[in-house]
Amino acid sequence: MKPSIPKGTRDFSPVEMQRRNYIFNSIKSIYQRYGYLPIETPAMENLSTLLGKYGEEGDKLLFKILNSGDFLNGISFDDLKMIADHYKEKGMTASSNSLVKEIENITSGKFSMLISEKGLRYDLTVPFARYVVMHQNDITFPFKRYQIQPVWRADRPQKGRYREFYQCDADVIGSNSLLNEIELCLIIDDVFTTLNLPVSIKINNRKILSGLAEVLNASDKIIDITVAIDKLDKIGLDKVIEELQQKNLSAEAIEKLKPLLTFSGDLGAKLTFLKSYLTTSEIGLKGIEEIEFIFDRIAKLGLKTAQIELDLTLARGLNYYTGAIFEVKAINAEMGSICGGGRYDDLTGIFGLNNMSGVGISFGIDRIYDVLLDKGLFDIPTDFDNTKVLIVNFGEKEADFGLGIVRKLREAGINAELYPDAAKMKKQMTYADDRKIPYVILLGEEEINSGQLAFKNMLTGIQEIRTIENIIEELKNK
Amino acid sequence: MKPSIPKGTRDFSPVEMQRRNYIFNSIKSIYQRYGYLPIETPAMENLSTLLGKYGEEGDKLLFKILNSGDFLNGISFDDLKMIADHYKEKGMTASSNSLVKEIENITSGKFSMLISEKGLRYDLTVPFARYVVMHQNDITFPFKRYQIQPVWRADRPQKGRYREFYQCDADVIGSNSLLNEIELCLIIDDVFTTLNLPVSIKINNRKILSGLAEVLNASDKIIDITVAIDKLDKIGLDKVIEELQQKNLSAEAIEKLKPLLTFSGDLGAKLTFLKSYLTTSEIGLKGIEEIEFIFDRIAKLGLKTAQIELDLTLARGLNYYTGAIFEVKAINAEMGSICGGGRYDDLTGIFGLNNMSGVGISFGIDRIYDVLLDKGLFDIPTDFDNTKVLIVNFGEKEADFGLGIVRKLREAGINAELYPDAAKMKKQMTYADDRKIPYVILLGEEEINSGQLAFKNMLTGIQEIRTIENIIEELKNK
Repeated sequence: MKPSIPKGTRDFSPVEMQRRNYIFNSIKSIYQRYGYLPIETPAMENLSTLLGKYGEEGDKLLFKILNSGDFLNGISFDDLKMIADHYKEKGMTASSNSLVKEIENITSGKFSMLISEKGLRYDLTVPFARYVVMHQNDITFPFKRYQIQPVWRADRPQKGRYREFYQCDADVIGSNSLLNEIELCLIIDDVFTTLNLPVSIKINNRKILSGLAEVLNASDKIIDITVAIDKLDKIGLDKVIEELQQKNLSAEAIEKLKPLLTFSGDLGAKLTFLKSYLTTSEIGLKGIEEIEFIFDRIAKLGLKTAQIELDLTLARGLNYYTGAIFEVKAINAEMGSICGGGRYDDLTGIFGLNNMSGVGISFGIDRIYDVLLDKGLFDIPTDFDNTKVLIVNFGEKEADFGLGIVRKLREAGINAELYPDAAKMKKQMTYADDRKIPYVILLGEEEINSGQLAFKNMLTGIQEIRTIENIIEELKNK
Repeated sequence: MKPSIPKGTRDFSPVEMQRRNYIFNSIKSIYQRYGYLPIETPAMENLSTLLGKYGEEGDKLLFKILNSGDFLNGISFDDLKMIADHYKEKGMTASSNSLVKEIENITSGKFSMLISEKGLRYDLTVPFARYVVMHQNDITFPFKRYQIQPVWRADRPQKGRYREFYQCDADVIGSNSLLNEIELCLIIDDVFTTLNLPVSIKINNRKILSGLAEVLNASDKIIDITVAIDKLDKIGLDKVIEELQQKNLSAEAIEKLKPLLTFSGDLGAKLTFLKSYLTTSEIGLKGIEEIEFIFDRIAKLGLKTAQIELDLTLARGLNYYTGAIFEVKAINAEMGSICGGGRYDDLTGIFGLNNMSGVGISFGIDRIYDVLLDKGLFDIPTDFDNTKVLIVNFGEKEADFGLGIVRKLREAGINAELYPDAAKMKKQMTYADDRKIPYVILLGEEEINSGQLAFKNMLTGIQEIRTIENIIEELKNK
């Protein structure tokens, strides 16, 4: 039997773990620097928590967990007979999804409930909302939490898209202040400065998009308008207008929209233009005011390396975001968004706790990993977390002496190994090479008697005679 | 709708996360100190990887994942009709498990395969074996790996037993050397010394148990004998003998066993006794030799705080362990084993890679957590990972100034927050209290003009006037 793993899932080898931990640790320590606290939620949630939260498409992508053992218990013989009859009627060609729906009707929803009541979490936002509602009496608001855990989606796997992947979220809940939006931008700047990756932070505001639809007299078409505008860079003005015509946006509205689409200028000019453009829309002006507040404070503080820009075509998460919308892209990289987020005015309403505004971001660790690898930016010390010294094992007597030596190294905080078997010298040196262990100690009978050890630098090949105290002194300062 | 989580699962709040991370980090850094490397495997494994590896009981405890969407596709109408007839025949009272088995027979195993082909991992050992076989060409052996990830079991939840829990495993594969066993004992000593928890390491050897069964002429009864012996402490000699009689151990064997059960003495005496007792068993003598080697080296090195003892009644994992067996208990605590492990001569044979001996241990994080909490041993600095300074927000002007101050603190590596809303003073101080933030900076117009900030120690209540540079200097050294 040749073992394999489910498609769309991955093993992480030590080298990959080291790189991933470098990213995770960078993000984690910056979240903590800004006062965010960690939580974890279970991998499994009740389906009643998950279903209906991600749209119809999302529901289909949930991994459901079979009830243990007894999934037919509770369905009567008559139910099953009816299912069989229906099954015959529809034949083998009937799509199984629609068949299941009919079976659900026959059994009044019992069938799939009896098969499965739990699912794997699809993201970290819904479990967080559920967490806040369940623990509301123990939480001091505003609650700044971060959460780094895997999520699962039954998506069709493809390059860069996995069925199991980590999300790294930070959210503040219970505060309407725009200082939170400002801090999230600073966090993004800090993270990518730490990772040496130049990025551009794109910001928009849902209120501006609502205002736009309002002044075009097309509030019902806000999704169509933003989806079309979003393609401006890719397909050009003419095609965008064509698409809007197909979506039945009036000629008048399209005429009014044109100057916005063709406007160019710096932030100040953009804002001045927008203010007159949206002058009749209260919500639009509110959106501009929010954007101005955020950009003004960030300009005063200054970002370390990130660029920041107002991007009116940015329209992600339009179904739930109500204020700021963020998206981050690596500069000069063929890669989609590597971080995103926004504000949602009623995060916990779905679970019965109203008036809880939240704003958050999420780093896409897999894409960040790929970009850093592409650009050769994994600036990790070669001995990060790795073994620094290998003691070669020449036999039982030497190994006994080596046990004492390796212990001294470890007590001094130095990661060290004694090769466990008295294998051939070549095999042990190959081990040190493959494992990228930078130093090797060789000890034979002579070394045991004299206390002077042979200490080899694997990079330079230079071998010196040293005492263990001397070796420890040198390695401690590396 | 009141949200809930599946039974047997848990949310972890920031305080619990802090304590758990303290344990995880202690274990992780010691694993690394000894040259173990991290890997991660997917939460989902193919059922073909998992089934049959944990016994019949284990198979039942696997969480299976529903194939997405189409779980009835491929079963014919006739199949379903037969299922319905069988279902009627057996009635609603038939155990659903046996019913499913019959359905499996009817459909030649199609039914559950069509429903589910993946399961959540049950432990970290089988996925590790699968990993080694799949990646054997990229691995330099001996391979020392550690793995800290959750596992899932559909066990009946009860106090201290969860359906989702973390395992913290370290294993060496591809080395027969007993130095590995010695190092694992040193790791256990280091971990519990770091956690300030006095423990006793109990060691046994499967070969000694095999030898015992051999000299009793009852090799086929090795499980019965060890299960009975294991209860000696709890039920006493007479009851143990009674149980062995019930298991049809011969009177002669029982007579021969008695001196072993009643023997008392130190390690040396125990070993001398065992050597003569097992003198006719080659495998038994081999087991004693291994135990002697391990105890001798450990005695020479000395353990920091752990006690270590040979425990002949220790018989965990008898189905797979072939050499050393480890178990760790906290001293003076009402708690089962908090760490365990052993050697298995053929870890990867189940996946077609033979002659790979492995030895490993696993820390039980949930039990360690409970013991440390019980004994008040969570010796975590109060500001570990937590925010050190809160800047009170008195209004827009003060917040703008505060943005610069909080940034200076963060740049100096100090975890700091600016309260996002200009809420009432009392609310902000309560936030600092609840969040256990040790220092607060208050800045009003006067402070902005003078650059002299009010700096309050929340523990002592003392408030002083300081510059930000002075505050940073003080906090950096904490």
